Amino acid sequence: MQDIGRRSRRFDALDKARGTEKFASDIYPPDMLWAGALRAGVPHGILRRIDTAKAEAMDGVVAVLTRKDVPGTNRQGFVHWDMPVLCGTRVRHAGDAVALVLAVSRRILAEALKAITVEIDPLPVVDTLDAALAGDAPNLHGLDTGNVLEAATIAKGDATTGLAECDVVVEETFFTPAQEHAFIETENGVARMDPDGTLHLTVSTQAPFRDRFEIARALGLDPSRIHVTGPYLGGGFGGKDGATVQCLLALAALHAKGRPVKMWWSREESLLAGYKRHAARMRFTAGAKRDGSLHAVRCELDYDTGAYAHLGVEIMALGMEHAGGPYRLPHLEAKGRCVYTNNPVAGAFRGFGVAQVSFAFEGMMDRLASALDMDPLDFRLRNAITRGERNCAGVTMTTSTGMEECLLRLRDHPHWKTRDAWRADAPPFTRRAVGVAAVFNGMGYGRGLADYAVAKVRLTGSGRIRVYNGVSDMGQGNASTFVQVAGEILCQPESVMELVQPDTDRTHPSGSSAAGRTTYTYGKALIKACEALRDKLFNRAALMLFVDDGCGFAMIPGGVRHLPTARDVPLAALAAMMHPDDRISMSEYLMPVTPETVRGGEVFRLGFPHLLFPYAAHLARVEVDELTGRVAVRDYVAFTDGGRVLNPQNFEQQVQGAVAQGLGYALTEDVLTDKAALLAKDLCTYVIPTSLDLPDIESHAVETIEHTGPFGMKGIGEVGINGPLPAVASALFQAGLPMTRAPLTAERVLAALGSADQPRIADEATPCP
Amino acid sequence: MQDIGRRSRRFDALDKARGTEKFASDIYPPDMLWAGALRAGVPHGILRRIDTAKAEAMDGVVAVLTRKDVPGTNRQGFVHWDMPVLCGTRVRHAGDAVALVLAVSRRILAEALKAITVEIDPLPVVDTLDAALAGDAPNLHGLDTGNVLEAATIAKGDATTGLAECDVVVEETFFTPAQEHAFIETENGVARMDPDGTLHLTVSTQAPFRDRFEIARALGLDPSRIHVTGPYLGGGFGGKDGATVQCLLALAALHAKGRPVKMWWSREESLLAGYKRHAARMRFTAGAKRDGSLHAVRCELDYDTGAYAHLGVEIMALGMEHAGGPYRLPHLEAKGRCVYTNNPVAGAFRGFGVAQVSFAFEGMMDRLASALDMDPLDFRLRNAITRGERNCAGVTMTTSTGMEECLLRLRDHPHWKTRDAWRADAPPFTRRAVGVAAVFNGMGYGRGLADYAVAKVRLTGSGRIRVYNGVSDMGQGNASTFVQVAGEILCQPESVMELVQPDTDRTHPSGSSAAGRTTYTYGKALIKACEALRDKLFNRAALMLFVDDGCGFAMIPGGVRHLPTARDVPLAALAAMMHPDDRISMSEYLMPVTPETVRGGEVFRLGFPHLLFPYAAHLARVEVDELTGRVAVRDYVAFTDGGRVLNPQNFEQQVQGAVAQGLGYALTEDVLTDKAALLAKDLCTYVIPTSLDLPDIESHAVETIEHTGPFGMKGIGEVGINGPLPAVASALFQAGLPMTRAPLTAERVLAALGSADQPRIADEATPCP
Repeated sequence: MQDIGRRSRRFDALDKARGTEKFASDIYPPDMLWAGALRAGVPHGILRRIDTAKAEAMDGVVAVLTRKDVPGTNRQGFVHWDMPVLCGTRVRHAGDAVALVLAVSRRILAEALKAITVEIDPLPVVDTLDAALAGDAPNLHGLDTGNVLEAATIAKGDATTGLAECDVVVEETFFTPAQEHAFIETENGVARMDPDGTLHLTVSTQAPFRDRFEIARALGLDPSRIHVTGPYLGGGFGGKDGATVQCLLALAALHAKGRPVKMWWSREESLLAGYKRHAARMRFTAGAKRDGSLHAVRCELDYDTGAYAHLGVEIMALGMEHAGGPYRLPHLEAKGRCVYTNNPVAGAFRGFGVAQVSFAFEGMMDRLASALDMDPLDFRLRNAITRGERNCAGVTMTTSTGMEECLLRLRDHPHWKTRDAWRADAPPFTRRAVGVAAVFNGMGYGRGLADYAVAKVRLTGSGRIRVYNGVSDMGQGNASTFVQVAGEILCQPESVMELVQPDTDRTHPSGSSAAGRTTYTYGKALIKACEALRDKLFNRAALMLFVDDGCGFAMIPGGVRHLPTARDVPLAALAAMMHPDDRISMSEYLMPVTPETVRGGEVFRLGFPHLLFPYAAHLARVEVDELTGRVAVRDYVAFTDGGRVLNPQNFEQQVQGAVAQGLGYALTEDVLTDKAALLAKDLCTYVIPTSLDLPDIESHAVETIEHTGPFGMKGIGEVGINGPLPAVASALFQAGLPMTRAPLTAERVLAALGSADQPRIADEATPCP
Repeated sequence: MQDIGRRSRRFDALDKARGTEKFASDIYPPDMLWAGALRAGVPHGILRRIDTAKAEAMDGVVAVLTRKDVPGTNRQGFVHWDMPVLCGTRVRHAGDAVALVLAVSRRILAEALKAITVEIDPLPVVDTLDAALAGDAPNLHGLDTGNVLEAATIAKGDATTGLAECDVVVEETFFTPAQEHAFIETENGVARMDPDGTLHLTVSTQAPFRDRFEIARALGLDPSRIHVTGPYLGGGFGGKDGATVQCLLALAALHAKGRPVKMWWSREESLLAGYKRHAARMRFTAGAKRDGSLHAVRCELDYDTGAYAHLGVEIMALGMEHAGGPYRLPHLEAKGRCVYTNNPVAGAFRGFGVAQVSFAFEGMMDRLASALDMDPLDFRLRNAITRGERNCAGVTMTTSTGMEECLLRLRDHPHWKTRDAWRADAPPFTRRAVGVAAVFNGMGYGRGLADYAVAKVRLTGSGRIRVYNGVSDMGQGNASTFVQVAGEILCQPESVMELVQPDTDRTHPSGSSAAGRTTYTYGKALIKACEALRDKLFNRAALMLFVDDGCGFAMIPGGVRHLPTARDVPLAALAAMMHPDDRISMSEYLMPVTPETVRGGEVFRLGFPHLLFPYAAHLARVEVDELTGRVAVRDYVAFTDGGRVLNPQNFEQQVQGAVAQGLGYALTEDVLTDKAALLAKDLCTYVIPTSLDLPDIESHAVETIEHTGPFGMKGIGEVGINGPLPAVASALFQAGLPMTRAPLTAERVLAALGSADQPRIADEATPCP
């Protein structure tokens, strides 16, 4: 059985381990063409001319397409339609596609791309926030607001008065870098124009249903004639939420004369053209009272969205919504700006705007605790938001709110209780400290964008149970959990279950795989669908057994049982008796939203504010090498409130994955550029942590109950990534090394060591032998 | 906040720690009398004469009562009315009360009791099962069936055919002792006849509502004129489920001329006259197939119910129902006999008949695994019951069934994985072994006896929330959990909550504190009552705020909030506006039962069979001193499926308490008698483990979801006690010491060491220095 609460094996585990599960990148249809884009290569300029003649003449080249071949609006971006499929005259970043080639092999494709000549007149490069905001900055998108895509201010209470009332006030400016998703499976898909005129794409995507509309608008097609299949993803993390290969592939298919076309970005192309996490600058002023109560925060958040908007405004909105932390905060003023530059395009990324501000608000908490001479954990506990209070943005927390409990459990952890002894026991030339962070993350789309799912479950003709999953599984395990949910309600073992992955022809619109929403929203819909199927099976079995009604029946593996008379009806027998239409059960669910408003939040039409939040308290035991500045995280502990846990193993893996990615963000990952040109071109120069670089990551669930959620759960796909950077920074702060710029590289820490005080070697009388 | 899932401080903790919480034994009303019973002192005989004249003449003696003073049926026992309040002519055990004295002080009471002369003609003593079942045995209750109170046989499949089909068959007879509840607060209460003719008792009881009927029948009173108050208990464990002091106290109050009367049994009286766990003899034959599947069990269970029935038949029924273990078992035949003797009266005790058979069925599992050359844990896993299957008694498990998951988690525990190394690392003259046990325990009353609760919650006039608890809290923490449940639904912190303990005038009938049912049943009723109160508060607040209806409201601490308009209404304002009747919300809940029947189970009209079961897998690391036979449990681990956990701290404490009591049962506790006369008269001769005798007890929750339960929970009050004896015995079995008689004392283990092989000292060339 795959009961809820059980550490169930993932339904997808065996097929993935065996390699029999097919990802989009595993698909090589017969007679297939390869498609590839020529990238601009310069970050800003005017495209004067493209000479494709030589490439077109090459043997094995089927087509070379440019802007003039795009039949529709040529605009991508599912909120702000500002990103061309193929550039016309203006190039805004080095990864802009300027031409698309179809060839019979990957080798010929590469040669043809090289054979295209492009003339671009360079323009001044806007490579920093300050450059973009300067009065004389080139206007990248011709907005009246210059390069400011959106500016907004939200407020709760009165930050000016609030700060004046504080006994201690601290100020700091924090910087976080762009981050690469670095999924194993880079952006890819296959497409073909079917003989009936349907355009069929199989693509590594987080949003197959929405992709249809994005492709249709960009290319002037009928969305109902676009069919998208979304297999399991080899990672997504937000980087496949929005068009990557979709429009280019669709355009290619239009010119492939019915042949299938495959596009698969190399790691280098993925780094160049894929979406990144927004780099951010965050100016914070925060104040507290002598009694330890956090009282007022004022902040200015600037997000660098790169050349195009993607979800930049929505990401900024989440940053602002979370800017006061998971705390009881009477006064908040958060200003946000989302700014265009010529840097790589920033977009959705796990932690969606919140990973950035978590560094800042937790940094402020450390500084305030220090100013108040309070223990940093006690200070957080003192201010932790609880249910029934308004959160920092002013929304009443009517849903489960486990922040305080996470911190209480962390306080009881041996690593916290023994922190002084551990610190005192540091080896020579080493500083030790234990850092903590309290974080949260809005779950679901928030108000303004219907967060819904439509679930379908079917009793198959042979008496098996088939779940039609409408929302992509990018590795987080939601699909497997759906099997578990159906198994729980219908009391069927894994061996009876089948699973259909998202497909716009077979499954039903259920939103994107994003915002920690998949299991919550689809799960709720699926529970209703399964309950309705169960009741229907009872009623049909009652007909077969000549009993009055469906009462007294129970599901058993492989069938239903009439308990009063001890008669079983196998599912196969029921299936044989029922019409195919009768064997389907569908249901829908719409996530609740808060009816409350946030002052100044009206400008955000989509996804603001949130009602549901998971919470986490993280601890990092950190060693700093005083000779090199290298930071090593020795132990890591996460307490996470995700409501009820459906599969403890999945829960643990998701926390561990998020912490691993967060430690990369904290320590090494940085999409370095020079004048907006990539320096981190591959995984040798863009450094993600390997298993050898990571400590053991302890994950503990703090099981509150979220009444609105399926079996009481909340989604935790994102919250875990928000903790590592502030937790490590908190440890460094305890070690006398206040850091304001991430990642916390050895160079930066060494500089801090030099400025803070001399490493201990200066005090040594004799060198070590 | 006291949210569900939170490790909340117990609501009763502070008052108990400070001593301000009043137990029944803390009550000393002004002008109070003491009541005490004279005990027969001989186990069997004919009461010829009682001379009370000397006692009656003593200064300070208010009354001396005998059988002739009892106005009603003089029969106690809430299923089988066979136990006299005061003996008439027949004495059936040494603790039988023959006279009741009321005196102004405890000292005078003791002297008066000594001054009474009793003449009893002794009869042959029936002190063992064999003696009771012998053809010429004295017939203790004049039944046609001799001393057999009830005999029954339940069956599933065909055990004869099943055993013939087995590849291995093992046989064994197991013996378990009587066990003393040994609560800290011995049996006690106070009673008085109020001026209006109401009899008011405040008593340490698990069933205040049922007590009224038991008193009324025994003494010929009107139950509606009996008022019982049930404060917190200083322990119960089943020993206060049924009349102890109640009828004697009520009788005393009838003769106290309006003065309050207190009765409080000494430890010695509690050992002599209180209820015990049934001693049992269990003959088992069990067979399995070569493939490792458990196939058939036949058993004969004999329970010694002592002098009176109490719940002996129901306890035997539970033993029979669980006799095949938490396993998939095609064939079971379980015969049971519940037998009268002159031993101390046996009655309800945590583990209710199941603690006994757990020793036997798990002993058989060890022996079968050994015969099959299988790992004992793998063998259990191979056969663990899962949801949708029929359990050993034939009931389909339609509710959460976490046996397999508990075992899987145990298998991953370091103590299990390192068992070989640990065993090999034993010090000299020491044997080490790791034992496991898989256990379960029916939850709730089962079919035939309505397991219901009626909950009440009130918004007080000052805007606080008051929960009226209808079911005793004997220390397990259900009352505190009710506060937590109400706090969760109504979003109120502990500081706003009030709690009324059971009282037949103020709270509502909600059954006894027994069978792991309290939080489940009352909790379900309370959730409904709180939801109804919440909805009512929303609707009343809507009237106050001139909005159309109760939509858009949320509970916040101390009030309700209209979210769309950000207006709050304090609970105090609502309370001031609402009529007292309008501020009450009540609801009821009835636990579901299975409609299935068990072959042969028709004789059990009450409490058979069960639908809901918690499960547990236990592990004991055991060291045996080869020189003394002493068994030391070094480490103990319990994985428990109790569905969802409401308060992790309570859950852990309850498991730890049960394991501690179970280890006493396993190792030292034995109500030793000689010719039915007590040898274990006090806590020097009846040995319960102290904290120094116990290992650390690790408790892990395996959180399945029980759809019928409050927030998905099941009760775990009992299951934990069933594991220690079989787990320790399993370790001894692995160590080459198969034990069949509990407790596993040093004497018995030394004997087994002697018979199994010589201790290693015989091989030593030289003695230790």
